[in-house]
Amino acid sequence: MAIIVQKYGGTSVGSIERIRHVAARVSECYRQGHDVAVVVSAMSGQTDRLLNLARELTPSPDPRELDVMVSTGEQVSVALLAMALKELGTPARSLLAYQVPIRTDDAFTKARILAIDDKSIRAVFQAREVAVVAGFQGITEGNDITTLGRGGSDTSAVALAAVLKADRCEIYTDVDGVYTCDPNICARARRLAKISYDEMLEMASLGAKVLQTRSVEFAKKYDVPVLVKSTFTDEGGTVVAREDEDMEREIVSGITYEKNEAKITLLAVPDRPGVAAEIFTPLALKNINVDMIIQNVSVDGKSADLSFTVTKNDYAQAMELIKAAAAKLNAKDIIGDTSIAKLSIVGVGMRSHAGVAARMFKALSAVGINIMMISTSEIKVSVVIEEKYLELAVRALHTAFDLDAPARQAE
Amino acid sequence: MAIIVQKYGGTSVGSIERIRHVAARVSECYRQGHDVAVVVSAMSGQTDRLLNLARELTPSPDPRELDVMVSTGEQVSVALLAMALKELGTPARSLLAYQVPIRTDDAFTKARILAIDDKSIRAVFQAREVAVVAGFQGITEGNDITTLGRGGSDTSAVALAAVLKADRCEIYTDVDGVYTCDPNICARARRLAKISYDEMLEMASLGAKVLQTRSVEFAKKYDVPVLVKSTFTDEGGTVVAREDEDMEREIVSGITYEKNEAKITLLAVPDRPGVAAEIFTPLALKNINVDMIIQNVSVDGKSADLSFTVTKNDYAQAMELIKAAAAKLNAKDIIGDTSIAKLSIVGVGMRSHAGVAARMFKALSAVGINIMMISTSEIKVSVVIEEKYLELAVRALHTAFDLDAPARQAE
Repeated sequence: MAIIVQKYGGTSVGSIERIRHVAARVSECYRQGHDVAVVVSAMSGQTDRLLNLARELTPSPDPRELDVMVSTGEQVSVALLAMALKELGTPARSLLAYQVPIRTDDAFTKARILAIDDKSIRAVFQAREVAVVAGFQGITEGNDITTLGRGGSDTSAVALAAVLKADRCEIYTDVDGVYTCDPNICARARRLAKISYDEMLEMASLGAKVLQTRSVEFAKKYDVPVLVKSTFTDEGGTVVAREDEDMEREIVSGITYEKNEAKITLLAVPDRPGVAAEIFTPLALKNINVDMIIQNVSVDGKSADLSFTVTKNDYAQAMELIKAAAAKLNAKDIIGDTSIAKLSIVGVGMRSHAGVAARMFKALSAVGINIMMISTSEIKVSVVIEEKYLELAVRALHTAFDLDAPARQAE
Repeated sequence: MAIIVQKYGGTSVGSIERIRHVAARVSECYRQGHDVAVVVSAMSGQTDRLLNLARELTPSPDPRELDVMVSTGEQVSVALLAMALKELGTPARSLLAYQVPIRTDDAFTKARILAIDDKSIRAVFQAREVAVVAGFQGITEGNDITTLGRGGSDTSAVALAAVLKADRCEIYTDVDGVYTCDPNICARARRLAKISYDEMLEMASLGAKVLQTRSVEFAKKYDVPVLVKSTFTDEGGTVVAREDEDMEREIVSGITYEKNEAKITLLAVPDRPGVAAEIFTPLALKNINVDMIIQNVSVDGKSADLSFTVTKNDYAQAMELIKAAAAKLNAKDIIGDTSIAKLSIVGVGMRSHAGVAARMFKALSAVGINIMMISTSEIKVSVVIEEKYLELAVRALHTAFDLDAPARQAE
C-alpha cells in the first residue's frame, strides 16, 4: 500500500458539484488501500472575493491581516471536502496549517515553508482516515498565519509528499498536462508525457502556469515524482521526474512566455564593485523579485548600462526605489518599458547540442522580430521582445524546433 | 486607565463602511488610553452563506468540519477590523481562538468555554495595540476548532472580560438596549436602564435576543457589568449588573416570548422511578435541549401524562427518539404540536410579591386565552399558549403589569 498525496486546484473544487466529484476520486484511491493526503485550494473566485473586500477597505492592506483573511478560502474547502468524503463513507479529517503544523518564515503573503511535522498526518493515516490538508497556508514560529503566494497549494502538496516520503504526488488541475507551449497561442502544441525537474523548473518560472516554481524545487530536492493531471478526465497527464534515459531526447522540450513583466534600464551607472548591490538591495528589502538582469560591458571602463525585469505588479514600486538608487549613483537616465514579453526555449538536450541559441535567433530574425535582451542558462535561452510580436514568435520557434504536433492531432 | 472589552455583532460589521465606523469607535476608546480588546462576529449573512454551502452538500454535515468552515466568518471580520484600525493609525492585531487560546469542550457547533489564557492578549496590550479577537470560536484540547452556537460572540466577549478582569464589557448591537418587551409586537415597550443578571438570564433564555444566555451566566459568575448599546447611536443602553438598590423595583421587569418551540406530550406513561430518565436521556445524548417539562399527577397512581417543549429545529428528531422510548414504556399515545408559543413574565420583584402568577392568568383569561402549560421559577412565570394569540397576550400582560410607556413616548 502506498502513500499518495493528491492536490486539487481552485477550479477543481469550484462548486459543490465539483467537490463531490473530487471526493469520489479521493475515495477511489483510499479504497484501494492507500494512505491518502489531499491538499486543496480555495474554491475558485473566493481568494479574489476576499482580496477585493480588503481592497475596498484600503489600497495597501496589512499583510499579516491579509493572510489571516485570505487563508479562510482554503479553510472552507478542506471542511467541505472532508464533509463530502464522509458522505461517501470515506473517513476523513481536515487539517489546517496550525494543526499539522506547516511552519514558514514570516514573509506574509509570500512565505516559504521551513518545516512540516508529519506526526499529525501519520496519526490520521493510522486511524485509516483521509487527511484533507489546507494548501497555500502556513504558520510562523509565533503562530501567525501566513500564505505562500499564488499557486502556493502546489508547494504545500509537494512539500507534504516530501516529508511523508510519498510514493506519488498527483497534482490535479484544469489542464491535462504540460505542453510544448501554450495551446491558446499555438494550435499545434503537444502534451509531454514526461519532463525533467530542471526543464519544468524553467518552464514554471518562465510562465507555464501549470505548477508553481517552488513546488518543483521541492520536488527536485526531495526527488518526489509529480504527476500533473486533469481533474475532469482520466486521459493524459505529464510526469515531472528526475532526468532519465526514458526522457524524450529533443533538444528543446518546450517554449514558454511571460507577458506580466516590465523592463527597467539604468543608463551609465558607475562600473565599480558594490553597484549592483546598491541597486538591488532596496528591491530585495521590499520583497520585489527581479527576473532577468543584464549588464553589458562598459565602453569607457567607467560606466555601464544595466537592464532588469520585474513583474508588472511590482513595476511602479520598483521604479520608485530605483529612482532613489539612481540618484545616489549618478546614473544618466532611467528607462521603463511595460510593453515587453519574455520568450524562452527550454530543454535538457541543450546541454549536448551546440548552436541552439543561434537557431533561435535565426528563427526570430526570419520573421522580422528584434531581440531586446538575451539571457541564457544551461537548459534555456530567454529573450525579451516587444509584446505585440509574442504570438508570432512562439509559433515560429515551435516550428523551428520541430515541436509541432502532426497536423491531424491539432484539433 | 481601564481595560475595556467591546463586542460588535454581525450587523455592526456587515459592510466595509460599517467596519470603518466600528474602527473609529474602537480608536476613540483606545486614544483615551484604555487597553481595548474587541470581539467581532462574522459579517452579517456570511454564517448563513457558509451554512448553505454545507447544506447544499449534505443535509447533515459533519459537525467538526462545519465548525472549521463556519469559524472563517469571524476570521475574515477580525482581519478586516484590524486592517481598518491600522488605516486609522491605531495599532491592532487580530487573534483567532487558537492564538489566544480560548479552550472549549468538544461539543462541536455548541461548545462551551472551559478556559481562556490571558497571556497573549496582555502581551498585545503591553505593546499598546488593540487586540481584535475572533468571537464565536474556540479550540479543543486537541486543537480542533469549535464554535459556541448562535450568538456565541457575546459569550466570547464576556468570558474575555472576566479573565482580563475588565472594567467594562460593552456589547454593541443593532438595538439600543433591553426592553420591557419586543417593541415589534408591543408599541408601548420601554427601554430598561438597568437589569439584574438573573432577570436578564430569564429574559435571554426565554427569547429576548439581545444577549446569549451563556454570556449572562458568565457575567453573573464573574460579576462583569455588561453594557448593551447600539453601534449606530450614542443614546440609550442598558446595564446588566448585580442586583442592587438602584434597580427599578417593579414586580415585573419584562415580558418575553418564544415562537420557536414545539410541544410533545406522552399520554399515560408508567408512574415509576426512572421513567423520566428513560425519556430524556436519548434526547440529551443527541444534544437536544428540552425547555419546559411538565408532568401532572397520575389519577390512578399508575400512569401519568408528560409534556415538554423543544426547539422547532429539534422537533422532528425528538419525535423520532420519543417514539422509540414511548414504545418501550408502553405509553398510550404521543401528541406533537408545533403551533404554540411560550410567554413569560420576569422580575426580581416577584420574590417579595405574592399573587403575581394569579394576576397573569387573570389578565390572559380576560382576553379569552387558554393556557396549555405553566411553569414557574423564583423570578419568572411561563405559560404556553396557542401561537396565534401571542401578540394579543403580550400586550395584555404589558398593560396588566404597568409596563406601558407613557403614551407620548410611544412614537
